[in-house]
Amino acid sequence: MKIRVINPNASAAMAQMLGQACQRVKAATTALSVIHLPGSAPSIEGAADGARAAFHLLDAVAVAEREGVQGLVIACFDDTGLDAARELANGPVLGIGEAAMHAASMLSVRYSILTSLPRSIHIIERNQRSYGLDRRCAGIHAADIPVLELERDPAHYPRLVELGRALLEADRSECLVLGCAGMSQWAAALQRDLGVPVVDGVQVALKWVEALVTLGLGTSKALSYALPRVKQG
Amino acid sequence: MKIRVINPNASAAMAQMLGQACQRVKAATTALSVIHLPGSAPSIEGAADGARAAFHLLDAVAVAEREGVQGLVIACFDDTGLDAARELANGPVLGIGEAAMHAASMLSVRYSILTSLPRSIHIIERNQRSYGLDRRCAGIHAADIPVLELERDPAHYPRLVELGRALLEADRSECLVLGCAGMSQWAAALQRDLGVPVVDGVQVALKWVEALVTLGLGTSKALSYALPRVKQG
Amino acid sequence: MKIRVINPNASAAMAQMLGQACQRVKAATTALSVIHLPGSAPSIEGAADGARAAFHLLDAVAVAEREGVQGLVIACFDDTGLDAARELANGPVLGIGEAAMHAASMLSVRYSILTSLPRSIHIIERNQRSYGLDRRCAGIHAADIPVLELERDPAHYPRLVELGRALLEADRSECLVLGCAGMSQWAAALQRDLGVPVVDGVQVALKWVEALVTLGLGTSKALSYALPRVKQG
Amino acid sequence: MKIRVINPNASAAMAQMLGQACQRVKAATTALSVIHLPGSAPSIEGAADGARAAFHLLDAVAVAEREGVQGLVIACFDDTGLDAARELANGPVLGIGEAAMHAASMLSVRYSILTSLPRSIHIIERNQRSYGLDRRCAGIHAADIPVLELERDPAHYPRLVELGRALLEADRSECLVLGCAGMSQWAAALQRDLGVPVVDGVQVALKWVEALVTLGLGTSKALSYALPRVKQG
Amino acid sequence: MKIRVINPNASAAMAQMLGQACQRVKAATTALSVIHLPGSAPSIEGAADGARAAFHLLDAVAVAEREGVQGLVIACFDDTGLDAARELANGPVLGIGEAAMHAASMLSVRYSILTSLPRSIHIIERNQRSYGLDRRCAGIHAADIPVLELERDPAHYPRLVELGRALLEADRSECLVLGCAGMSQWAAALQRDLGVPVVDGVQVALKWVEALVTLGLGTSKALSYALPRVKQG
Amino acid sequence: MKIRVINPNASAAMAQMLGQACQRVKAATTALSVIHLPGSAPSIEGAADGARAAFHLLDAVAVAEREGVQGLVIACFDDTGLDAARELANGPVLGIGEAAMHAASMLSVRYSILTSLPRSIHIIERNQRSYGLDRRCAGIHAADIPVLELERDPAHYPRLVELGRALLEADRSECLVLGCAGMSQWAAALQRDLGVPVVDGVQVALKWVEALVTLGLGTSKALSYALPRVKQG
Repeated sequence: MKIRVINPNASAAMAQMLGQACQRVKAATTALSVIHLPGSAPSIEGAADGARAAFHLLDAVAVAEREGVQGLVIACFDDTGLDAARELANGPVLGIGEAAMHAASMLSVRYSILTSLPRSIHIIERNQRSYGLDRRCAGIHAADIPVLELERDPAHYPRLVELGRALLEADRSECLVLGCAGMSQWAAALQRDLGVPVVDGVQVALKWVEALVTLGLGTSKALSYALPRVKQG
Repeated sequence: MKIRVINPNASAAMAQMLGQACQRVKAATTALSVIHLPGSAPSIEGAADGARAAFHLLDAVAVAEREGVQGLVIACFDDTGLDAARELANGPVLGIGEAAMHAASMLSVRYSILTSLPRSIHIIERNQRSYGLDRRCAGIHAADIPVLELERDPAHYPRLVELGRALLEADRSECLVLGCAGMSQWAAALQRDLGVPVVDGVQVALKWVEALVTLGLGTSKALSYALPRVKQG
Repeated sequence: MKIRVINPNASAAMAQMLGQACQRVKAATTALSVIHLPGSAPSIEGAADGARAAFHLLDAVAVAEREGVQGLVIACFDDTGLDAARELANGPVLGIGEAAMHAASMLSVRYSILTSLPRSIHIIERNQRSYGLDRRCAGIHAADIPVLELERDPAHYPRLVELGRALLEADRSECLVLGCAGMSQWAAALQRDLGVPVVDGVQVALKWVEALVTLGLGTSKALSYALPRVKQG
Repeated sequence: MKIRVINPNASAAMAQMLGQACQRVKAATTALSVIHLPGSAPSIEGAADGARAAFHLLDAVAVAEREGVQGLVIACFDDTGLDAARELANGPVLGIGEAAMHAASMLSVRYSILTSLPRSIHIIERNQRSYGLDRRCAGIHAADIPVLELERDPAHYPRLVELGRALLEADRSECLVLGCAGMSQWAAALQRDLGVPVVDGVQVALKWVEALVTLGLGTSKALSYALPRVKQG
Repeated sequence: MKIRVINPNASAAMAQMLGQACQRVKAATTALSVIHLPGSAPSIEGAADGARAAFHLLDAVAVAEREGVQGLVIACFDDTGLDAARELANGPVLGIGEAAMHAASMLSVRYSILTSLPRSIHIIERNQRSYGLDRRCAGIHAADIPVLELERDPAHYPRLVELGRALLEADRSECLVLGCAGMSQWAAALQRDLGVPVVDGVQVALKWVEALVTLGLGTSKALSYALPRVKQG
Repeated sequence: MKIRVINPNASAAMAQMLGQACQRVKAATTALSVIHLPGSAPSIEGAADGARAAFHLLDAVAVAEREGVQGLVIACFDDTGLDAARELANGPVLGIGEAAMHAASMLSVRYSILTSLPRSIHIIERNQRSYGLDRRCAGIHAADIPVLELERDPAHYPRLVELGRALLEADRSECLVLGCAGMSQWAAALQRDLGVPVVDGVQVALKWVEALVTLGLGTSKALSYALPRVKQG
């Protein structure tokens, strides 16, 4: 089973980190590749970065289709370019944002999201409303650490614990969703320290894509996600 | 990994059928058991049947916990007794209704549900609104065949194909969700004949519970799903 | 006019207390009976207790129908088993939760609910969303006193006043809904001390059921609440 | 108990008809008066008629307060001037639209409304959304008979039956709400002929206002419905 | 192009102030008139005042139509009588509340509203929900200064700045909407002092009505806003 | 006043057509430029085309800012790249989709949208839900004519009239929104032939941007639409 995780920013280091986390949980039969998009921004901070990432993502999805990849994960919590990617793919395509939110809504009545930057909140909110899961979300909070810092400096961890505890209390929340791929590596530690499920979308998306491929379920090619028409300018 | 699928009605035949479908897709490492609830109604048709099933489900969940079962599937599309079961369980508990709807919302923009009886529609609608997924559902339809008939008589299959085609057209829908555990066995054939993803919640729920257990994610025991307090009358 | 109030927990003391409150406000022509469910939990704290109560409620409703009872009140603020009871009944069946919320929405623009335990909040929220009344509710709060204590110890009253005042202020709320049958006896005192309408669902439900029976209005037996089909296992 | 039903149009004949229907169902202890507003339009057809009616209603409510009326019913399905009337009143004030919709939502899962004119539909929809009950309404339909005709010509009855049957079928609906005070007199016959509950808001509002007055519940005078401030120009 | 701004209260002084603000921004080709309603309340504080204003507004709209006015602005943030006015008018009719909210939703993701009195909040909320814009509003706040004071005493300005800053912070809001025509004169200063767009509905409504008239767009006369039928009592 | 209309596809012919329509309605003082994006798709049909257009749009917006453009219109009904463009701009940025929907909601209670292709419907729906205007929309319909054909072949006009009439009837709708920039040229004729307001978002967006610039209102640079941070890879 060929699965590919696409980190839609330009950080090879983050792709490597995601690859390590995914290797630990993937099925034995999964041939996993994790890539990044060199032409994209070093991190995705807002809608303009997202628009650039989505553009480069299109090529990556087309390549994956040609290479016979059967399922895709888009490893940015903004679910950057998700609809566009689905138009080009035949297998399942999951964003880590949607995967995490759906999972959290099945493990708890109310979950909270901790993302990195305030400017991402409205993007997550808009996605969440599109998925319908805003009804189950008790709050979206920004740790206010630039994305690249999270990846580079483990000293931010205690601040995450403190923030997590405070926002669960304030939101009367039962589950924490990590709102940034760069936080993946701390999921297990946070779950232990906070005492509630802590959901990392990267791992959930990978396992659920494996599940959907196993069951023969892919992206519907009827109407909304039909393959684009070939046009002449 | 010990996983249990609970068919919350009294039909041993249906449990057996579900077991066969699950055996084909479960992970090699999964120790799977499929049970039914002898004290329950022969099929769950409406809220009163559901209330009886939920009562007997409680004992089955308590037994599963004592036996070290790590993940549970409730194999009725009404997601009968789901909240109550979660209070008693530590691992993940997924209803086949919610699993199917969540999956369909990641494979298409709009899905339709085909259930067995008209009187189940408002129960599914209420659940769906609670999950937030009513926004993605284009319609819920009843095949108007009693549940036990679906299980017993394969001659109903052509009618399902015809109904499926008509409702996808009428709903401008891109994906079909099977709204009854008794329809599981026809999922693959319907997907082939209708040309869109056909989602069977039993199989999706099984695979996603496996995924969540693998990732160390269980039901939150904070607030809503905390273990019940021991009381004295 | 035969009306029955069913306290769906096992507390005879609470049934007796409810009976006294109801006797004071019932119509002269109403033949009122108030019962409890000995097989149920001593108090309903969460979904598992609720599932057990709903099971025993079914028998009580069937008995009431056989005895010619014309209208029913389910005296638990969670509206436990309401849909199931409606399937078995011909007359009107009102939950005290719904009755109180509907009344509050006609006496004020925004109301707040004070219930007993935090774990009941999500159940009330889900019901409220089903009724549509979440739009009018400014907040649901838990007094965090176990249900049985409320019934037994009047010393909790000043705490209720203080809590009521604080939550009305914080919610910018105009009306208080008592979110537990066990609080009924304090409705009048709280209304006097808080200066806003204080709605006790037990009394409202009783009077509104009387009204509906007088007008010849009962539970619709079309589709959702049709009498269950008789099945053979 | 002094209760007043205000027909907010200028039709004395309609007020008389409403008075007869109310006399049949009111409590023995209720001193009932039914009035109309001579300065208003002969029937309320749309928002401009409604604005004129609301203006004249204000005086009628002020008079009622001075005369010690304890509860009010506004007998137009548009719930004309309801918020304004509540500001001036101390007792409960119910519109027949809201009373009918709330009652229908407790007798069925889905109800349909049959009003007189197409131009009233958006007014009812807006009210319904404000009450939250749009979630329970399966459709609002116009019989397309001017209001005064309904009152004058009983030959329209068979058309109502036919319309009612067709819209219940089309909406998969379980209960019919009469969306015009002028239809009150046919409620009982329609219920008999259609086989589902048929809700007349005039009668429900009267009985529920009686109930609320009995329980000592009136309009909250905190915030939204506080008595208007006396101003100088 | 004949445009009329109707201040629906009885304050000639406020009409004069609005006229000055409008003169500064109107198109050179616009023949602008600004009127008040002498029969109305000196300020509109709540629903009863609003009902009186709407009554007098009807005559003013009828007069405007006869005089060939091509576009109307209703200069009360409650959008008093808006639906009724649209029934009588052929050109566009904009309320300053709706104009301000729509504009704010195109300049920011989340806006906050600062109105004058707490009792207006529920009226604005109801309108906003009808427009759909409640999703974009982060909060509605009352400065708690009677409307006439705002007009008369510039010393309230520093309090507005302080309030504005605090509520933008608390709401995580990106734009301030002035929720009262009497605040118009401070829009420019507030925008400078707060550093976010500050939207005055009077000016936006005027410019947008000019735009719609230029484009030949008026109020639809189909269905909801059709001219009222002429009736005989 | 420098205003720029950006046609985000690669069609110079469409840009020219839009320029002609805009010249007719712009203010005398407006220095208008209309551009297209040569690197984009010849027409925007779905999310992948949209992602490519959004990428090229970013450069166009940056150029416009450097050239002192004060207000922008994005002339694709999908509002392609709108959030990203707002991050880079200081003046107002309006999509023609949002402008048309907002305008229609102020001219009618219910509007319908006629777009070109079925695969655009879910994109418009998602935008509309984000704006809140889904509550006012009675239906979104696809004419099922490829975008470039609409521009090239006037013989499609009678089909538009027929479609428009049918969908207004079916939706009980009061206003028609043209859901594609390529339909702009037929707005006036359709309004004449259908008898309801027909809203072309290109013209409305242009006029409203002029209005906002006149009033000194631009995109909020607080939080969501703040200028992107300069990063190093």
